[in-house]
Amino acid sequence: MDALKDSIPENMLAIRQYEPDGKLVVETIPVPQPGRGEVLVKMAASPINPSDLALLKGGYMKRSYPFTPGLEGSGVVVDSGAGVMARLRKGKRVACTPNPEGDGTWAEFILTSAMRTIPLPASITLEQGAMTVVNPMTAMAFHHMAKTEKHPAMVNNAAASSLGKMLIRLCADQKIPLINIVRNATHVMELKNLGATYVLNSKDKGFETELFTLASELGATLFLDALSGPHTYQLLQAAPPRSTIVVYARLAGESMQVNSGHLIRKDINIMGFQLGNWLQTKGIFFKLAFIKGVKKQLGKTLSSFISQTFRLEDVEMAITQYTQNMSSGKVLLLIKQRE
Amino acid sequence: MDALKDSIPENMLAIRQYEPDGKLVVETIPVPQPGRGEVLVKMAASPINPSDLALLKGGYMKRSYPFTPGLEGSGVVVDSGAGVMARLRKGKRVACTPNPEGDGTWAEFILTSAMRTIPLPASITLEQGAMTVVNPMTAMAFHHMAKTEKHPAMVNNAAASSLGKMLIRLCADQKIPLINIVRNATHVMELKNLGATYVLNSKDKGFETELFTLASELGATLFLDALSGPHTYQLLQAAPPRSTIVVYARLAGESMQVNSGHLIRKDINIMGFQLGNWLQTKGIFFKLAFIKGVKKQLGKTLSSFISQTFRLEDVEMAITQYTQNMSSGKVLLLIKQRE
Repeated sequence: MDALKDSIPENMLAIRQYEPDGKLVVETIPVPQPGRGEVLVKMAASPINPSDLALLKGGYMKRSYPFTPGLEGSGVVVDSGAGVMARLRKGKRVACTPNPEGDGTWAEFILTSAMRTIPLPASITLEQGAMTVVNPMTAMAFHHMAKTEKHPAMVNNAAASSLGKMLIRLCADQKIPLINIVRNATHVMELKNLGATYVLNSKDKGFETELFTLASELGATLFLDALSGPHTYQLLQAAPPRSTIVVYARLAGESMQVNSGHLIRKDINIMGFQLGNWLQTKGIFFKLAFIKGVKKQLGKTLSSFISQTFRLEDVEMAITQYTQNMSSGKVLLLIKQRE
Repeated sequence: MDALKDSIPENMLAIRQYEPDGKLVVETIPVPQPGRGEVLVKMAASPINPSDLALLKGGYMKRSYPFTPGLEGSGVVVDSGAGVMARLRKGKRVACTPNPEGDGTWAEFILTSAMRTIPLPASITLEQGAMTVVNPMTAMAFHHMAKTEKHPAMVNNAAASSLGKMLIRLCADQKIPLINIVRNATHVMELKNLGATYVLNSKDKGFETELFTLASELGATLFLDALSGPHTYQLLQAAPPRSTIVVYARLAGESMQVNSGHLIRKDINIMGFQLGNWLQTKGIFFKLAFIKGVKKQLGKTLSSFISQTFRLEDVEMAITQYTQNMSSGKVLLLIKQRE
């Protein structure tokens, strides 16, 4: 007898998309069965991230349709295929991410590789644990870059985002000077109250000069660019020689303008960053140590503020809410199983 | 008695520019005197390089005016200041480059740091030796990147240039597959006759697809971009995941358009390259080994074809000639001393 397994229904609710930028459909589809090295997670919660929106728009990654969106979440492992790691996960509360090209977390169950689940410490709720990967790991990856590449200070141009706030707390904890760029005065106050030392408002007169001067003074040579479009050019102008610009999202534009004279003369490096790509270049021992580091900070600097929760079925309402108030906190889908 | 030193006149001819993009003036100015660690080189020859044109246009580097242009050349060391290295150079035939912000090689004499001179092997003429640094060292730097960063193959989008031809010979010698991009059918034939295996004409229908396919097949992940402008975007589209695009000149445009989606998704790195900046990051032992490697290839793969020579005084004519026939060979200023 396997009570966990016996509790698995034949069918489940899942959010499905049939074409790039297509509408989201609530469907009843069969619960999948785990193969070797795989686990079945009964989902509890899943956030909406900017990368989800990019995936829904399409063009972000080539993929087959229809599919279930959702790039991270949390739940309990209720079934596993063959393999030591998969079997060891059974019954565990985990954070999880989908397999590449696999169905995502916006469903009552997800099938994924055991390698793509992280057991959650008892002190972390399933709600908080649903946001273990995308933002916390990205923040830690930037911190890791700053340390290993010896950047004396960093700049982030989407400082009021959830990731931006994590970075502020992490950098304060790790004593790395961080220049935060926001787009209105309310956010300046909010971030200063959160403990940020340097906050610049890009709408202020003289912003470019201020950024240039401050970056030079602090030796900020790692620029985190979530906006792209004309904003990359702004960072490039402010960047001291030998700086690296890390483009990790493109919230303000698909195409960025770059001054090649600056690039050549100042010996600047512009790199695209996607967490999955970055982790893929690392060995298993690095990954284990990295995840351990993330877990340690999860209840501390890397926690997320949840502004609102929705039922899985109300995903389109949840997306609307998130898109209109991106910097007010995370919007979470709470996934209840049907009786 | 010091016959070499006694032969130095009080004044010399020098080409001078008084403002960015200003006309070039032939002037008589005092011959400078070497300080500690410096040498005085009696110039024999100096080429016109794309970097000279960029410097003359201004905006390439901030600098004080008036100054003497010319970023490399050859001659004989006729005087030296204190210091072992400087004294050891005296009487030697050398290739030379100016100090940062210092006056250049388009004059009868140049004052520069002894570190910025390279003794020429007896087998290398002063005409060939005048082109030791800019192109050969850049070609060797790209070769070094390909080797150390383990790029299976390279792409160069200015393949018909002097540097492009050096790369073709160097890559053939070192067995590194090189995809050459040119802009007309004549150059396709010319480069194939030179021993190039892969030559694509960017004016051909289906060029983008051909480049994409060939780059994937060969695993070309190092893209050398001399053009910038819309051409960088072309390389970005063709680049396999984890490629590096090295922007080393901007012959076709000051500003480049970059698709940030591609950059993020394919984990692409775009870096500015300037030979001086690159060498500056290297230690002295690397530099010595690097120069030795360049010298070894100087009379072989890294030789330049001289299409025309001009007197120093006719520099504007020389520049016109060079600009109109960039890919037909190097234009050299031959610097004769007045009696």
